[in-house]
Amino acid sequence: MKTKLKVVKIGGNVLDDKTLLSAFLTDFAKLDDPKILVHGGGKKASEISEKLGLTPQLIDGRRITTDDDIEVVTMVYAGLLNKNIVAALQSHSCNAIGLTGADGNSIVSIKRPVKTIDFGWVGDVQSVNETWIKSLLTEEITPVFCALTHDGIGNLLNTNADTIAVELAISLAANFEVELIYCFEKRGVLEDFENEDSVFLSIDTDLFAELKAQKIIHSGMLPKLENCFYALNNKVSKVIIGSTAAINTNSTLHTTLTL
Amino acid sequence: MKTKLKVVKIGGNVLDDKTLLSAFLTDFAKLDDPKILVHGGGKKASEISEKLGLTPQLIDGRRITTDDDIEVVTMVYAGLLNKNIVAALQSHSCNAIGLTGADGNSIVSIKRPVKTIDFGWVGDVQSVNETWIKSLLTEEITPVFCALTHDGIGNLLNTNADTIAVELAISLAANFEVELIYCFEKRGVLEDFENEDSVFLSIDTDLFAELKAQKIIHSGMLPKLENCFYALNNKVSKVIIGSTAAINTNSTLHTTLTL
Repeated sequence: MKTKLKVVKIGGNVLDDKTLLSAFLTDFAKLDDPKILVHGGGKKASEISEKLGLTPQLIDGRRITTDDDIEVVTMVYAGLLNKNIVAALQSHSCNAIGLTGADGNSIVSIKRPVKTIDFGWVGDVQSVNETWIKSLLTEEITPVFCALTHDGIGNLLNTNADTIAVELAISLAANFEVELIYCFEKRGVLEDFENEDSVFLSIDTDLFAELKAQKIIHSGMLPKLENCFYALNNKVSKVIIGSTAAINTNSTLHTTLTL
Repeated sequence: MKTKLKVVKIGGNVLDDKTLLSAFLTDFAKLDDPKILVHGGGKKASEISEKLGLTPQLIDGRRITTDDDIEVVTMVYAGLLNKNIVAALQSHSCNAIGLTGADGNSIVSIKRPVKTIDFGWVGDVQSVNETWIKSLLTEEITPVFCALTHDGIGNLLNTNADTIAVELAISLAANFEVELIYCFEKRGVLEDFENEDSVFLSIDTDLFAELKAQKIIHSGMLPKLENCFYALNNKVSKVIIGSTAAINTNSTLHTTLTL
């Protein structure tokens, strides 16, 4: 039987709330199984950008990662957020190590090709160094990935944290029984966005198709769920969407995705 | 015979000069022996602090690391500088990994006790996790340390990069034949500060005592050299002070410290 592995991605709401983050990290540190944490940037990157006098560059409503932006996200994601998370986990006796995709050549991306929009320093994941990540896990080290990868030719690339989580989960599924958990501001996927209690306990492929058709699932939740089914279709054992409580085994109120 | 290990510390002048840094990293990546790179922050941290509207806090002329300052150095040292160095080394096929002392619990410090001055978030090194660092080196991974450590109770601490280099060198000397190299803006320790060519090729303990007495060596160079002799007195095989060229084995114009 394969060893269990939890790949947990935390959203901006967790990162932006010091008390919630601290409580989450205390719980995360206690998880027995091997585990990986993935985080984005929350509001901090925008806050620092603004303080530095930078204006977000948008093309057709899509945010571009300019030369200045990649500097800011490298400072905020890989420095400020990542290293404080690592220090907090160490204080709870969880031997964490903070990583970008450049560290240990762990995640290589390709700079997004310019079609109609030049997104700037944005990367799409090409490969994961699962051998090395597995060796860290075997040594009982907990990798903490921020939303940065590299192209192998010297550039850091801004990379969606949800995507990093799913690519890590898939690449490690050959060696582990992987559970992928997305923690965000709701307790799960909601049937009625206005009603916090209307959590779908389970969504399978058929229900997902139906919910898409009915436009109950739309905008930001759509790519998140597409990612989840992509994981399930690629040997990830279990995918959960929920609040930070979803990392605990006794948690029941969250959305479990199934094929 | 022990395996050779080079511990190289680069100064602010190297970090602040993109062309020099790039040339140095190209050479550093080519070194055959296991190696560790240590860097501080150069002018970038001050530049970002200023842009963020922060004013350096000084007590008796000594700089204090305030709550805001530790955020900035964490962003600049551990994020911007460290991760760009790692990405550059990866592009030269050097499998680097960027670390603070919190990562892998590699360097634990104690927050400097308040005597007459409260230095704020500054740490004095207490212990180095040489077992783990050795295991990285054995896997042909090159650690890149920035000037940050942690206290084990959740706080990152600003820590002198020269000190980090010497503590790493000493802790690894039991397992490796360690050469410690300080690269800075001069070609070595100068007899005449005005004359770039007046490099001492060698300084031993006796000459050091003489140069101190004559005040030829003073101010910033004094603790640097004290550090070097401390290393030599603690099983580090060789200590060199020079320009970036000093990392190359065919380099001759630099200062070698001997007991």
